[in-house]
Formats: sequence, C-alpha cells, structure tokens
Amino acid sequence: MSPRRAIIGVFDSGFGGLTVLKALLEVIPDADYAYFGDTARLPYGSKSVETVARYAVEAAHYLESHGAQLLVIACNTATALALDRITNAAHVPVVGVVEPGAEAAAAATKNGKIVVIGTEATVSSHAYRKALEARALEAREKACPLLVPLVEEGWVDHAVTEQVARIYLGEAFADGFADADVLVLGCTHYPLLKPLLHRVAPAHVRIVDSAESTARAVASHLRQLLPPRPAALYNDERRAVARLKFFATDSVEKFRRLGQRFLGHELADVLHVDLKE
Amino acid sequence: MSPRRAIIGVFDSGFGGLTVLKALLEVIPDADYAYFGDTARLPYGSKSVETVARYAVEAAHYLESHGAQLLVIACNTATALALDRITNAAHVPVVGVVEPGAEAAAAATKNGKIVVIGTEATVSSHAYRKALEARALEAREKACPLLVPLVEEGWVDHAVTEQVARIYLGEAFADGFADADVLVLGCTHYPLLKPLLHRVAPAHVRIVDSAESTARAVASHLRQLLPPRPAALYNDERRAVARLKFFATDSVEKFRRLGQRFLGHELADVLHVDLKE
Repeated sequence: MSPRRAIIGVFDSGFGGLTVLKALLEVIPDADYAYFGDTARLPYGSKSVETVARYAVEAAHYLESHGAQLLVIACNTATALALDRITNAAHVPVVGVVEPGAEAAAAATKNGKIVVIGTEATVSSHAYRKALEARALEAREKACPLLVPLVEEGWVDHAVTEQVARIYLGEAFADGFADADVLVLGCTHYPLLKPLLHRVAPAHVRIVDSAESTARAVASHLRQLLPPRPAALYNDERRAVARLKFFATDSVEKFRRLGQRFLGHELADVLHVDLKE
Repeated sequence: MSPRRAIIGVFDSGFGGLTVLKALLEVIPDADYAYFGDTARLPYGSKSVETVARYAVEAAHYLESHGAQLLVIACNTATALALDRITNAAHVPVVGVVEPGAEAAAAATKNGKIVVIGTEATVSSHAYRKALEARALEAREKACPLLVPLVEEGWVDHAVTEQVARIYLGEAFADGFADADVLVLGCTHYPLLKPLLHRVAPAHVRIVDSAESTARAVASHLRQLLPPRPAALYNDERRAVARLKFFATDSVEKFRRLGQRFLGHELADVLHVDLKE
C-alpha cells in the first residue's frame, strides 16, 4: 500500500451510512475505507445522548485502531448528539453529516425556509436547526420514527410508506412552513425513499441529503491531510479501485444481505466485531 | 421484608415485557418485582442468536445479583433464541413466554391450526412452531417487523397500522391456514394492538397472548420454590402491594414515559444501569 493512500474510517449505527460511503466512493475512489456498523446496538435514533455518545466513541476508537486517518460519522443521530464528544475523543480529524447537510440546504434554498426530517433523537437535539439558523435560515424539524423500519422492511416504494410519508410531511409542511422550498433528509436511511418523497412533498420542494456534500467535505479535509502528489502517481492511483473493509457488531451474513441494498453492490470483506473483547 | 416474600426478576429488551409484568401483578400481587429493560440495546427482534443470547445472559445475571429467586424472560425473541442459554447460565428457575403461549393456544384451538405473529428473529427460530408441533398442532409463523415501531409510535389504533396488519395477517391466514382459529401474539408489544387485530383477523379467530399463561406458570413455580404459608400470614401478605423496581440501560426518563403506556400506571422507582460497569 502506498503511504499516500488514505484510510478513511466510516461509522454508522448500521447500514444507512453506506449511502454516505457510496457518495465517498464517487468523490474519492483512490482511498481505502474501513466501515463500522454497530448493528448489534442499532438503532440509535430512539436512544439517549449518553448512550449514543458512548457507543460512537467506542466505534471511533475501533476505527482508529484499524488505521483510520480521518473519521466520517455517517450517522445523523451520532453526529447530532455526539460529534463534539467523538471529536474530543479521537486523535484524527472527524467529519459529521449535519454541517455538510446544512451547507447543501443553504445552497439549494431560495426563500430560506427548510424542513428537516430525521429520527426522534436527531430532531430532539436540534442540531440541524442550530446549523441552519447559523446560516440565517429558518428550520422546521420533524421526527419520522417509522421511516427507518419501513426502509428496513424493504417497503421503499409501498403504499403504506407513502401514506406514512404523507402524514409526516403534511405535519411538517404546515403553518409557517407550507412554502418551505427544501427538504433535508436528516437520516442516512432516507435517500432510499427519494423517489417516493419526491411524489409526496410539495412540487416546488428540492430534496437534499448530506451524503454528497459530506463526501466533498471529506475530500477537502484529505487535501489538507495528505499533501498533493506528483500528477503521474496520482493518476495511477486514481485508477485503483477503492479497497473496502466492513466491521459489524451483529451478524455478518445479515450485514452482507441488507448492506448491498444500501451500497448497490456486494460486500465482500465483512468481519464480526465484539466491542467487549 | 418477610423472608417468604418472593423476589421475581422480569427481563425484556425494553418495554414490551411490562405487559407480562402487568399479568404477573394480577396473579401474584404479593411479591417483589425487579424488572430489567435493556433499552440501550433494543430491539432484539432483528438481531442474531449470538448477540441476543449474550445480552440476555448479562441481564439474567444482573437480576440474580439483585436477589431474583426466579427469572421471567418476558421477551419472545430472547425466549425463542436463548432460553436454554439463559437457563444454563442462571442459578435460579427460568420461565420463558413461548411454552406458556403454546399452552394457551392449545387450550383455545378447536381445529388445531394456529397462526403465530412475532419479530423476524422469533419467527426464524421456529420456537413457536416446535412448541406447537410438540402438542400435535399445526403452526404458520409470520414475521411482522413493522408492528413494534408502530406501537412505539403510539399508533395502536391508526389507519396505517390497520393497513399493515391487514397485509401481514392476509399473508398469514392464507393457503392452508385460511381456517386457522387461533392467533398467537408472539411479541409482548402486540397486546396493545389487540382491539385492532380483532377487527383485522378473520371473525372466527381467537387471539391469545402468553402474558396470562406465563403468569400462571410463574405462580406454579413459586409454589414449588416457597412452601405454603400459614393462612393468616398469607392473607395479610396478599393485601400487601407489590413492590416494583425497574432497571433500564437507556434513559430513565424515557423508560418512565413509555413504560406507563404498557403497564397502565406510573413507574416510580427506575434506575439507570450500565452493563459495562
């Protein structure tokens, strides 16, 4: 392995972060990736700050011990509740998904009114509202706890999911926010619902998720971390396929099976991790 | 505390086991109860045998260390996947919910055809099918992964939940099982859906849950464990209110709030537990 080839650690409570990994692979294909899915303890979205922070810091240390030179917290709940704690505990740069998501929303909005959907924990933390208000944008946050289980049931284009989305979005795009023009997908499961959410959201609404803008933020960090390389070598390495390694705290078989739904292709190298060992 | 007053440990991944505790309080009001809800790691229903067994054994040891003289595994997934492991690891009698549930189904059926609904993990284990076939009954098991999140969203009598239940029960009461006459609620969240399930299930179907029959099985165990007491003393103690202590691995505040939905009254004495300590 070239010493210049970065090892990027990606952490999520389960599978959702694979949508972020997918975006990373497009923007930074010439890197090695170590993905940690805390599937034995998922979901984080209904849990408390203390519990989520403790789990996330354990995962961050695990990825560092496997050589990660930069950590991507590809989980909105962990970012919203524990980014400071993870950053303090880590010895390498840490990038979360909330700031890049807010940045993407700011770029997309015309009238400055944003609706954010996410888990109960993400919404309760008001991390998105704070990040959006810091950009002089108005934010309405709406918890949608049923969307993750519906995605995991595979009902990504199902009449029930559409009905649930209509209820949630109906409550969100109301009162002062009927004319909000951006919908932020504040949970990494939701990109799988994009076509359905496009149908259900008001016609003028642009949907943004943080995967792509997170990937760009990571690329910018990497440029600071690893100095520019000679063009020839760089071009050679660009052609190299990214190397992927996956760690899961619950069943490896299930991680392979559900994971490919999110990543879009097979997951070869999946190892089981017991964090108590 | 009278030395004859039993301490009963009740274990669940979260709140669902409180429906079993409720039945226990009716059948055995003169006991002390220690309830352990592993809310930081719930749900168990989508996790592997290894993970569920490890979590459940830790919880069993915790309850034993708090004086439990008998353990009730008030979680269908933990019973289905790990009852043997828990029984081997414990030093006191252990009662699960699957055998009592099968017993109740056997008593309720006329034509010997039973439909069981439960989590993905419970259904994959085929614990109910084995328990029912051992009683010469035919069983159709159906995983209903969305029902737990719908109950936790509080949508216990909602049009969406009814639509989801129609889909699941439509698939279960089909082919050779259209005339099944008993529906076993193989998950402790489901009793909250009983009125809705009565509407959705075929009219001739009797719904049984294992809470009540589990409570009777526990009472029978207790009689063996603690010898009969003088009638006068016994009557005095019967009048005593059960003492309840709750342990939760995630937020105490949330346990109090969601817990009373399942138990039907306030939860006073809730302590936070960190199993890593």
